[in-house]
Amino acid sequence: MAGPVNSNLDHLRIVLVDSRNPLNIGAGARAMSNFGVRRLRVVNPYDVAFREARSAMGAAKLLARAEEFTTVAEAVADCSLVVGTTAVGHRELQHPLRRLPDGARLIRKQLASGKVALLFGSEKFGLSNHDLSHCHWLMRIPTRTEHSSMNLGQAVAVCLYELVREGKSPQAQVKVKNAPAGAGEVERITAVLFETLQASGYVKPRAAEATEEKVRRLVRRLSLEKRDAELWLGMLRQIAWKLANDGDRGRN
Amino acid sequence: MAGPVNSNLDHLRIVLVDSRNPLNIGAGARAMSNFGVRRLRVVNPYDVAFREARSAMGAAKLLARAEEFTTVAEAVADCSLVVGTTAVGHRELQHPLRRLPDGARLIRKQLASGKVALLFGSEKFGLSNHDLSHCHWLMRIPTRTEHSSMNLGQAVAVCLYELVREGKSPQAQVKVKNAPAGAGEVERITAVLFETLQASGYVKPRAAEATEEKVRRLVRRLSLEKRDAELWLGMLRQIAWKLANDGDRGRN
Repeated sequence: MAGPVNSNLDHLRIVLVDSRNPLNIGAGARAMSNFGVRRLRVVNPYDVAFREARSAMGAAKLLARAEEFTTVAEAVADCSLVVGTTAVGHRELQHPLRRLPDGARLIRKQLASGKVALLFGSEKFGLSNHDLSHCHWLMRIPTRTEHSSMNLGQAVAVCLYELVREGKSPQAQVKVKNAPAGAGEVERITAVLFETLQASGYVKPRAAEATEEKVRRLVRRLSLEKRDAELWLGMLRQIAWKLANDGDRGRN
Repeated sequence: MAGPVNSNLDHLRIVLVDSRNPLNIGAGARAMSNFGVRRLRVVNPYDVAFREARSAMGAAKLLARAEEFTTVAEAVADCSLVVGTTAVGHRELQHPLRRLPDGARLIRKQLASGKVALLFGSEKFGLSNHDLSHCHWLMRIPTRTEHSSMNLGQAVAVCLYELVREGKSPQAQVKVKNAPAGAGEVERITAVLFETLQASGYVKPRAAEATEEKVRRLVRRLSLEKRDAELWLGMLRQIAWKLANDGDRGRN
């Protein structure tokens, strides 16, 4: 095909989290270039020299333009859908899990109206529970249970192939929904809600971190539209303000 | 999935011709293991130490059992269908060329009755005209014209993924959606939320009715699942309780 399969692919962000091996980042970049996906984001790479990866054959420019972040939250802030990839099997999942062909269909739909982040974890550990708490849902490549863990570059290649394999623009089939909320907005809601829950005594100090992750997942499952996100944020801020205010009065 | 997706995959032979890089052979082996394909054949590898490839994580046995041949003719002798993979573009093709999704369908059919060889050429030159002359037809991964040449391990991964993607696995049947919340639960959430908003000063007394309706619609747009509805209700009740409690203290 000539040029990117689908201009909507420009809304896709490939996010590599905690990658240990620059060769794998390079291999991911090459697969992106093969399939016409250009926006690479790297969170906290172990090797700062990743931009020189020799395995990025034909994708040096893409790699040079990769954006670097220190947290997943920042890397996905402008995306309205955040999808994690997983080999599963080794832990309880708190998220809806979709097979790649089904997940890719949903991603293509979303790309028509907003940015989508597709997250890949480190070669050794995959995505952490904290990383996963930023995701709306998870996607799994249908590998064998006995050997489910794929090489990072290969996993990127397979996911992107599935996204382009039909080669048709999804726009024709998609009714444009109201604009979805960005991950930055959703994270602000999460923060104010968590703060409110702490002020209310809902959060047990010992379980604060686990509760925060639970709340983060919960808020993402709402799949908020942009206009609703603003309403929720306004309501929560008012409640948080009142709690802080009453609390002070209570103490005085 | 448990075991190979499809026992017919045991009829598939992955044939790597003139591979220059043992790491790529290892990566191909790993992808085979991921997707439940076990029979690797190697024709004239440049590096005789290919069986020690460190990139064959989880596929060392498969690699150790790889069969070695000096010619393509010998490597495909027992197969009833021989398919070459190509990035195309650089030479006149004498063969029917199929897109991967279409080619994979034909390969799956053939696997039901006989052995199929799937050939991958060297990283640098692909399959030679001589190699191609052993093929019944060619298959192409739909990469961009401007950067069509894939890494060998990634090409193997994508082709095998396409061959197994329709197979069902236990994970495929995972129920994605939990039971939806009942209208009664949703209304209880609405009530507690509205009460909280009133206590916080968010609701203007004159607009109370309109705000209540707005909140009711807002909560319904969340399309809550049952388990999430319970969590939201618990959180909101705690916040409402705290507001009432602090408020009383404030007044006393």
